[in-house]
Amino acid sequence: MSDIVIATEEELRRLLPLDIEAVEVVEAAFRALAGEGVVMPPVMSMHLPEVNGEVDVKTAYLPGFEGFAIKVSPGFFNNPKIGLPSLNGLMMLFSATTGLAQAVFLDNGYLTDLRTAAAGAVAARHLAPEDVAVAAVLGTGVQARLQMQAVHLVRPYDRAIVWGRDAAKAAACARDIAQATGVEAEVVTDPERAVSQAQLVVTTTPATEPVLRAEWLHKGLHVTAMGSDQAGKSELEPGALAAADLYVADSASQCAALGELRAARAAGLMLQDPIELGAVVAGAAGRTDPRQITICDLTGTGAQDTAIATRALAALRASGGGTRVTS
Amino acid sequence: MSDIVIATEEELRRLLPLDIEAVEVVEAAFRALAGEGVVMPPVMSMHLPEVNGEVDVKTAYLPGFEGFAIKVSPGFFNNPKIGLPSLNGLMMLFSATTGLAQAVFLDNGYLTDLRTAAAGAVAARHLAPEDVAVAAVLGTGVQARLQMQAVHLVRPYDRAIVWGRDAAKAAACARDIAQATGVEAEVVTDPERAVSQAQLVVTTTPATEPVLRAEWLHKGLHVTAMGSDQAGKSELEPGALAAADLYVADSASQCAALGELRAARAAGLMLQDPIELGAVVAGAAGRTDPRQITICDLTGTGAQDTAIATRALAALRASGGGTRVTS
Repeated sequence: MSDIVIATEEELRRLLPLDIEAVEVVEAAFRALAGEGVVMPPVMSMHLPEVNGEVDVKTAYLPGFEGFAIKVSPGFFNNPKIGLPSLNGLMMLFSATTGLAQAVFLDNGYLTDLRTAAAGAVAARHLAPEDVAVAAVLGTGVQARLQMQAVHLVRPYDRAIVWGRDAAKAAACARDIAQATGVEAEVVTDPERAVSQAQLVVTTTPATEPVLRAEWLHKGLHVTAMGSDQAGKSELEPGALAAADLYVADSASQCAALGELRAARAAGLMLQDPIELGAVVAGAAGRTDPRQITICDLTGTGAQDTAIATRALAALRASGGGTRVTS
Repeated sequence: MSDIVIATEEELRRLLPLDIEAVEVVEAAFRALAGEGVVMPPVMSMHLPEVNGEVDVKTAYLPGFEGFAIKVSPGFFNNPKIGLPSLNGLMMLFSATTGLAQAVFLDNGYLTDLRTAAAGAVAARHLAPEDVAVAAVLGTGVQARLQMQAVHLVRPYDRAIVWGRDAAKAAACARDIAQATGVEAEVVTDPERAVSQAQLVVTTTPATEPVLRAEWLHKGLHVTAMGSDQAGKSELEPGALAAADLYVADSASQCAALGELRAARAAGLMLQDPIELGAVVAGAAGRTDPRQITICDLTGTGAQDTAIATRALAALRASGGGTRVTS
């Protein structure tokens, strides 16, 4: 017997913009991850070759958060043939005190987009140089836009550079970034040119071969790689991880299985346990010198889902929005 | 973007009684489990000692079913102190073709009760002797009632016997079974007396020490043990499994981890791979002689959730019930 609120994507987009509060709550989740009492089981996955689909379920219990999220992320790759997006999904929030369901967010992946971008801002806040004049993004999708918007909240860069394999998509992405942040945004056709000019680079591609080469790294650069979220994907040349002064994982175990760390270890590099973003947020040594080269590997954690779902419920309660169902 | 139907426990109880159709759909799920193309990942579990809680997530993709369920089962054992039940939870159904969410069942565990009882009927249909005059149940909870009701659909016994440690609860349980099935139901104070008179016994207790002893087994008996669903629980003396002519698991891997098989193996027995209920439903050798002793170990599978959720959506569509939300 419980009282549940159901919210649609449209309501969630209206109530929860990508703002500094979204970054703060995701940062709090990373801080909690570094502490005691966290329970974050491995991702539950179903690979469904019969229907060209896959389903991931993530969750995390974080002390200090009054609820825990469970997120279902289906990817069905025949959908575009019938005019549907490949990715969708929903998130639920349960009381961490009673286990009762509190909310179902029919967000079609919006909250995931939001918490993923927010994690990029957390990484930038704790790892990028204090002064970022130029930020670059490799990739032209939804996350290219959102990551650049999120990073701007914590490192208000003056100029954005976009690289993508499709020039028209890169131009559209640059326009959107300029509009969202108010800065000048330009397109380059050579990713090395993007990296060389930037103090902060975000990679947001589904690449299976590296798009960022180790030799392009330069003093005072921070790279956030968020495109790889499954075995088989890789955006950074393995040597880049080894060449950096500091490599940080959102989750050591997930990055070893799904992130850039996987490819690096397959190449015989980076065999020691990496430091995690939560530890850096909680005060462990991050960047200690503006000339250092830092890399943050983001695969996406259930902790971020718990954080953004908690914020979504608070926003719904404050607004009185959503559809209430008693069961 | 999808159109989702939300159903409450009250609607689901009204639309989905425990009837032969519920048994049939769960039987079809077991049949599918024995075939090709099934994807049923291990249960995702969070143990939350800080809040005296646990959360299990189950799912299964079954070829031939147009959707797959994801079920969240929280158990928060401080709840009774504040007047709430320990167990609740919800179930979702997703299209197996597109991955889009189709339904959220705010069932507070009702659909789990239903599919668990239905599995007992499937076990009885394929493993109990053809003629069951007397059926007995050890335990007096919700499943004691539902299992006896479900079994009566496929083995219309004339007399029911109830044993429980609490005489008043046993009497109430017997009354409910008599009312649901129309047969005479009596209470016994000695579980051996229950077992000795019955051709079919269902054990439905949360026992951590066996309640059914091996020496009580007699020719022509079928036992369904459904109480043990986690390591540490056990209803049957390990020797009972070894003494039976046939032992059948709902899922070999789950029974080895969570069911009666776990305790038997801990005692050094039953080390060979057991036959699964799906294989028996699909035609593998089950009971071949009315004098045999058979045991079925039920831990509860994601396949049953997919089955009952599929039926729930069909019932909702046929009735036009539920709350529709477009997102």
